[in-house]
Amino acid sequence: MLAGIRDPSLRARGLEKISWARRFMPVLDTIAGQLDLTGRRVGLVLMLEPKTANLALTLRDAGADVIVTCPASEVADDVAAALAHAGVTVLARSDASPADDRDFALRMLREGLDVLVDDGSRVVRLAHAENLLDGLVGAAEETTSGLRPLRVMEDRGELRIPVLAVNDARSKYLFDNVHGTGQSCVMAALDLTGLQLAGEVCVVAGYGYVGQGVARYARALGARVVVSEVEPFAALRAHHEGYEVLPLLDACPEAGLVFSATGVAHTITGEHLRAMRPGAVVAVAGGVPDEVETGDVPPGVTVLAEGECVNCAAAEGNPIEIMDLSLAVQALAVEHLVRRGHAMAHAVHLMPAELDERVARLKLRALGIGLDTPSARQREFLGSGL
Amino acid sequence: MLAGIRDPSLRARGLEKISWARRFMPVLDTIAGQLDLTGRRVGLVLMLEPKTANLALTLRDAGADVIVTCPASEVADDVAAALAHAGVTVLARSDASPADDRDFALRMLREGLDVLVDDGSRVVRLAHAENLLDGLVGAAEETTSGLRPLRVMEDRGELRIPVLAVNDARSKYLFDNVHGTGQSCVMAALDLTGLQLAGEVCVVAGYGYVGQGVARYARALGARVVVSEVEPFAALRAHHEGYEVLPLLDACPEAGLVFSATGVAHTITGEHLRAMRPGAVVAVAGGVPDEVETGDVPPGVTVLAEGECVNCAAAEGNPIEIMDLSLAVQALAVEHLVRRGHAMAHAVHLMPAELDERVARLKLRALGIGLDTPSARQREFLGSGL
Amino acid sequence: MLAGIRDPSLRARGLEKISWARRFMPVLDTIAGQLDLTGRRVGLVLMLEPKTANLALTLRDAGADVIVTCPASEVADDVAAALAHAGVTVLARSDASPADDRDFALRMLREGLDVLVDDGSRVVRLAHAENLLDGLVGAAEETTSGLRPLRVMEDRGELRIPVLAVNDARSKYLFDNVHGTGQSCVMAALDLTGLQLAGEVCVVAGYGYVGQGVARYARALGARVVVSEVEPFAALRAHHEGYEVLPLLDACPEAGLVFSATGVAHTITGEHLRAMRPGAVVAVAGGVPDEVETGDVPPGVTVLAEGECVNCAAAEGNPIEIMDLSLAVQALAVEHLVRRGHAMAHAVHLMPAELDERVARLKLRALGIGLDTPSARQREFLGSGL
Amino acid sequence: MLAGIRDPSLRARGLEKISWARRFMPVLDTIAGQLDLTGRRVGLVLMLEPKTANLALTLRDAGADVIVTCPASEVADDVAAALAHAGVTVLARSDASPADDRDFALRMLREGLDVLVDDGSRVVRLAHAENLLDGLVGAAEETTSGLRPLRVMEDRGELRIPVLAVNDARSKYLFDNVHGTGQSCVMAALDLTGLQLAGEVCVVAGYGYVGQGVARYARALGARVVVSEVEPFAALRAHHEGYEVLPLLDACPEAGLVFSATGVAHTITGEHLRAMRPGAVVAVAGGVPDEVETGDVPPGVTVLAEGECVNCAAAEGNPIEIMDLSLAVQALAVEHLVRRGHAMAHAVHLMPAELDERVARLKLRALGIGLDTPSARQREFLGSGL
Repeated sequence: MLAGIRDPSLRARGLEKISWARRFMPVLDTIAGQLDLTGRRVGLVLMLEPKTANLALTLRDAGADVIVTCPASEVADDVAAALAHAGVTVLARSDASPADDRDFALRMLREGLDVLVDDGSRVVRLAHAENLLDGLVGAAEETTSGLRPLRVMEDRGELRIPVLAVNDARSKYLFDNVHGTGQSCVMAALDLTGLQLAGEVCVVAGYGYVGQGVARYARALGARVVVSEVEPFAALRAHHEGYEVLPLLDACPEAGLVFSATGVAHTITGEHLRAMRPGAVVAVAGGVPDEVETGDVPPGVTVLAEGECVNCAAAEGNPIEIMDLSLAVQALAVEHLVRRGHAMAHAVHLMPAELDERVARLKLRALGIGLDTPSARQREFLGSGL
Repeated sequence: MLAGIRDPSLRARGLEKISWARRFMPVLDTIAGQLDLTGRRVGLVLMLEPKTANLALTLRDAGADVIVTCPASEVADDVAAALAHAGVTVLARSDASPADDRDFALRMLREGLDVLVDDGSRVVRLAHAENLLDGLVGAAEETTSGLRPLRVMEDRGELRIPVLAVNDARSKYLFDNVHGTGQSCVMAALDLTGLQLAGEVCVVAGYGYVGQGVARYARALGARVVVSEVEPFAALRAHHEGYEVLPLLDACPEAGLVFSATGVAHTITGEHLRAMRPGAVVAVAGGVPDEVETGDVPPGVTVLAEGECVNCAAAEGNPIEIMDLSLAVQALAVEHLVRRGHAMAHAVHLMPAELDERVARLKLRALGIGLDTPSARQREFLGSGL
Repeated sequence: MLAGIRDPSLRARGLEKISWARRFMPVLDTIAGQLDLTGRRVGLVLMLEPKTANLALTLRDAGADVIVTCPASEVADDVAAALAHAGVTVLARSDASPADDRDFALRMLREGLDVLVDDGSRVVRLAHAENLLDGLVGAAEETTSGLRPLRVMEDRGELRIPVLAVNDARSKYLFDNVHGTGQSCVMAALDLTGLQLAGEVCVVAGYGYVGQGVARYARALGARVVVSEVEPFAALRAHHEGYEVLPLLDACPEAGLVFSATGVAHTITGEHLRAMRPGAVVAVAGGVPDEVETGDVPPGVTVLAEGECVNCAAAEGNPIEIMDLSLAVQALAVEHLVRRGHAMAHAVHLMPAELDERVARLKLRALGIGLDTPSARQREFLGSGL
Repeated sequence: MLAGIRDPSLRARGLEKISWARRFMPVLDTIAGQLDLTGRRVGLVLMLEPKTANLALTLRDAGADVIVTCPASEVADDVAAALAHAGVTVLARSDASPADDRDFALRMLREGLDVLVDDGSRVVRLAHAENLLDGLVGAAEETTSGLRPLRVMEDRGELRIPVLAVNDARSKYLFDNVHGTGQSCVMAALDLTGLQLAGEVCVVAGYGYVGQGVARYARALGARVVVSEVEPFAALRAHHEGYEVLPLLDACPEAGLVFSATGVAHTITGEHLRAMRPGAVVAVAGGVPDEVETGDVPPGVTVLAEGECVNCAAAEGNPIEIMDLSLAVQALAVEHLVRRGHAMAHAVHLMPAELDERVARLKLRALGIGLDTPSARQREFLGSGL
């Protein structure tokens, strides 16, 4: 049986990276001291890098037995080694084959999890398909594109556990999707190519939270941004923000850099790729399989990271401060599922508002930001019919 | 009895302004050709300027008997004259006293309206207080701050007509509140003072849709913007957008320009005003009465437009293209109330999504903006549990 | 003979506006206390509004005999009345004909000036043409477009007085041309039309200091900006700033708003105007006569302010804080000419660097901005060949 | 004697990176076909990465004998291997000691160069100190901080060769210093730390071209930027661009990220470092030795790249498109020195304007950007005294 990590000797460097990130994660730090997960087994399916490692350590410190897995393209072997050394069960290697990755996920599920923290709902769906749901109290899912199929399953009556929609917590999507993924995907694309955006035409397919973030950062770095959309309000918003809005195929010929931020398969098809000029670069922000049809890339056009999420496959994911928020929500989601999961319907649930707001308030406190409080006269006004 | 308009001789200039605006209102124009309000009486309580005049004319062309009123500080007498000449009943003069304004509103209500289009819910509340609701099928309200008291009334069981929350249509608040009010209030403040924002500190109290717009345009014009908030997510969003976030009182001493965008009375109190430096200027964007406590302004501090909404009292309101959207929603709201109002509960209702989307699609068509359509493979993906 | 002002009774309102502006002019205020112009006669040819009025008063307070003139389209009669009441000779009326304007300028020249402060070099050139240079020690010119013909005259040996290029002082062009004219022209155009820039295409012809400012503020307000240029470095800079760069004729068809910022006659020709779509609006920022060929405007296209500088003819010019800098340079230029003009060559001279820097340092002091000072080790480094 | 490259086996990967970059270097490509350097020996002292490798190959293709050296911290061994394989003499290893680096430079000089292309003027100064100037026709220097000591040497009469100030070519500093170094230093700092700028306070010491670029990109990525300066006009410009301006020591306590962009030693001293909060990160953009006093860094504060230029030591330098401009200027500078160097004074010379403009025009052509041409009427206007 394949060992769970690639190279144990890398642990010192991994630990150093984990500790660096921890310095900038005050929210997770505070929550860490308040959790109790004694005797629970928690499976994490997250890009394995220094920030998510801190979630694993936080859950372990709260008493949980923690197992981590992750597809090969998103594994930092040094971080994996450090986690394994710290007593976390790690099943994640940068040299794993797709079959190994699937095998790791199955091994994790067979350990008998109480709670599963998933990314893209790949393992939740695998657990359903393979009938490995026994004992699983519930799962947390952190992406827009992972929630979509779970909601389809719910509609069809096929969902057999409660799922907490971590993605839909305001502490998560307002910051992680817009600012985290926006900044990190744009930067990863520039880093991989050595190119700049000043003076370049950048096309963004999809103007949801991720697309808004990508568009904003691309423009900030000097690009002329063109947005394509299927939804009229999103298109109008992009127009009013000063972006040109065009059907994707019309936008392709002039593009230097094209981002797909739809989370929908077959967004960038062979027809789109053939419409691009030589030198054009394509990247996926967020992403689902086949979002770019990579089977048919014309010479001269480059698809970064083989069409996988560019900041996960080719960089270390989102900025630390953003992940501090998102992982704090995850930690609270795990505790909530442990405590309440048995009583929850087999459906996709929003995070309880008080947990969401607790994360936001802890972040504000860590930043030293003070809020105002409505005065007595203001409260009176707000309650009146005036 | 006071004549409804101040100076009929101004009508030529008014007509010219109305026609100029009409050139940039393709959405209202299209809808105008599709309405039928034959035999209905509609009361409009809107800032009286060239754009709203086009709504009045549109309703009249659709067969309605239209009556317009408006507080003195928001009346353009030339536009009033042109409307009166065109057969609209106008009760609005720039030289009216507050008592006259109230009298005008009562005269309008006593005419026996089918539908009332209100701004700030002043006249809806007056109609309730004075028991002048007979025959009134329903009302439309276009502001955040006007809806708040109506919802309080609904909660108390005091609302006696259905109200359409025009403000909460996406075609309205995503553009009118953010871009329209944002741009026009910042520009009105600069226009009134002759000052610039480059290098200035601008404080924005409240980071809702209006506050977001004001902050964005103030920063765009070169200001360092400080935001104050009572709500944690709004505060965090402002922080991530790059604004400094401070309690309002802490922000006042350095401010050159202070906007209140809360829609809550007593936002800027005497204590805040006294904390400002000489030369500081205060303005209200949107606004309710007493949002700035103007009774106690220290020398050296200037409150623009006597604390009323700065772009209504001191300029011509929102840009034409934005008003084209908002007034198109109003027109559809009137028709919806006429057709369905009798069957609607005495509550605050959202605009039907299909009407909202119809406005958005007409605007896109007018702009020549094309949307993509999901392909068969994409629709299959979206419907699948993958 | 036509009276120099239109309506003396307006003086109270004029005085109030002058006093308001003065509150935001600390640099001119400080310099005012340091000037001595006893017994000199100074002619001012400046847009007559509250800020320039403060220059007139400053020079008068320094002991000068001050005469002001200005073309009719740039006169605020209330300010003119206030200045006249304060002892300044004013020859400027909003109802003057072009012939009157010329007559006013000649009357001013015939009074026997020591120093002439000009705007666009119209009166300097008139003085040469009419041979009215006797006794004139020198002139100051504050615009790019006014200096150009004076430099041509210098090259031809036709310049008969020394000219201080106030425009080329860094305290002037870095702020007045970029920020002052940029902001005020964009705002004046929006104010005149009631339109917005969010989502609009705005074309800027010329990417010098004024054009850079117009482009920046237009984009800040949400426009997609297209720049046209004749000079390769300017074009490349615009491209790297994220603007689309196109030949003007190619840019016209999509434009909603077109600014000419070249200061060159015949920039926007009939051919360009005919290429524009109905609803297009054209404005001049800065400007020389015939910059837009207004003889041939197709129906549907609107040229604002009859092709004159849009923020002078249709608004009150540049923001107060910017004018504080520019007028402070003017005041020092007058004093410099009085003291040194007799010894200066008949050429266009730069402002002495120490006067320019004096203005900048006074502004920093007024803003409360502290500079660092190189340490001893840094000075040693800077002086070394290391 | 130490081999000139570290690992010849890396050449395939190096070649791939060089070829990728070449695709985005149309200007250098065009110039490459026009150069003739047959029989000349050219020494290059440039960060050794894929873009500069293309300059080496271009010069070799033009017939020159090319030698490349570079300090260890700026060497990509794979690129070095590829260049060596292509027939360029490479003396640059990532594992070289400072003594090795110096030895490499001396070995290069002893080969007998015709022209030296330097970066930071380290080798030009070494050649003077070691008396290795025989046969050297001239040198090109591409940095602001490298030119400063050469100008001191010129003033002292110690400069013994002509130097072309490549840095001062408009095709270079308007793009490389502002956009190239600005973007790449900000991105390198974020990449190294995993942090974000949204909501962060970023201090920029020095508001020259590099500092302007750093400030712009940091703000674009969401930071609140504080600028410190010693020069009054630079400080006023930063203020008008909307940055807070403070003395450096006052700015340190709140800073999350501090950039030095002064090019002056001892800019960030122990006193500044001690004033920073735990978690603060310091980076140098551009840079000279000792710009940050790294001997005395308090715990909790991190200095990136040991105080060397953060985008050179920790990333691959400037974006390709920008380097296409800068390296094209370098190529023309080499040819100019070869042809005219013997007749040039021992001084720092500006690039001839026609060469500078040639680069700009080639770039515009590569971008497909068209310029306007003044019409006959415009040329007449420009030549007239009107």
